[in-house]
Amino acid sequence: MDFKEILKDMVKRVDGGRAAVLMGYDGIPIEEYRREGVDTDIQLIGVEYSTIIKEMKRASEILEGGELAEVSVVTGNGIVVVRGVSDEYFLMISLTAEGNLGKARYMLKMAVPKLKELL
Amino acid sequence: MDFKEILKDMVKRVDGGRAAVLMGYDGIPIEEYRREGVDTDIQLIGVEYSTIIKEMKRASEILEGGELAEVSVVTGNGIVVVRGVSDEYFLMISLTAEGNLGKARYMLKMAVPKLKELL
Repeated sequence: MDFKEILKDMVKRVDGGRAAVLMGYDGIPIEEYRREGVDTDIQLIGVEYSTIIKEMKRASEILEGGELAEVSVVTGNGIVVVRGVSDEYFLMISLTAEGNLGKARYMLKMAVPKLKELL
Repeated sequence: MDFKEILKDMVKRVDGGRAAVLMGYDGIPIEEYRREGVDTDIQLIGVEYSTIIKEMKRASEILEGGELAEVSVVTGNGIVVVRGVSDEYFLMISLTAEGNLGKARYMLKMAVPKLKELL
């Protein structure tokens, strides 16, 4: 499987999955997948969150919280789950507000080693 | 129930629950509860995250994501779940890395209306 196929498989298997992106912490995307008919701008979300996630990594180090593994954000219009892939890249998925957060967390966890192999 | 009792009840009912705090987005706490023998500095975590959460609220507005409801962060040493209580205050719980994130999310959701009544 290539990057796109891994992202597609992940989005399709999560209830409410809208889109996913593999992105650098510098906000530059490697690959994205969007379910047909979905207009979520996953790259824009990724760029906005990349700064916040960098800030969280820093906070986690200050608080001796260990390595940042995963962040989930629930808002009125949807859910975003982010998981670190390497020091440089993270994986992000966007779900509808009714999406299955637990399944998304699981699918991200499963996808990370596959993406790592390709990086 | 007063603030302390609500926090205590929440921490005690979540597997791996360490501590909880009700805090302003300005980093000033109203009340905290720490399980006996736990040395988690929940106020310090709250202060560090309050800035990040403010940043997330801003990002969520920019992205038209609607109101920020909940943030979960999993690191090597533990889990933190945050839920907005009002425009001024948020509720935060700290769990061990093996803690029950799903139960914590549920308990926070249940605690918020009770806290709101007291504010």
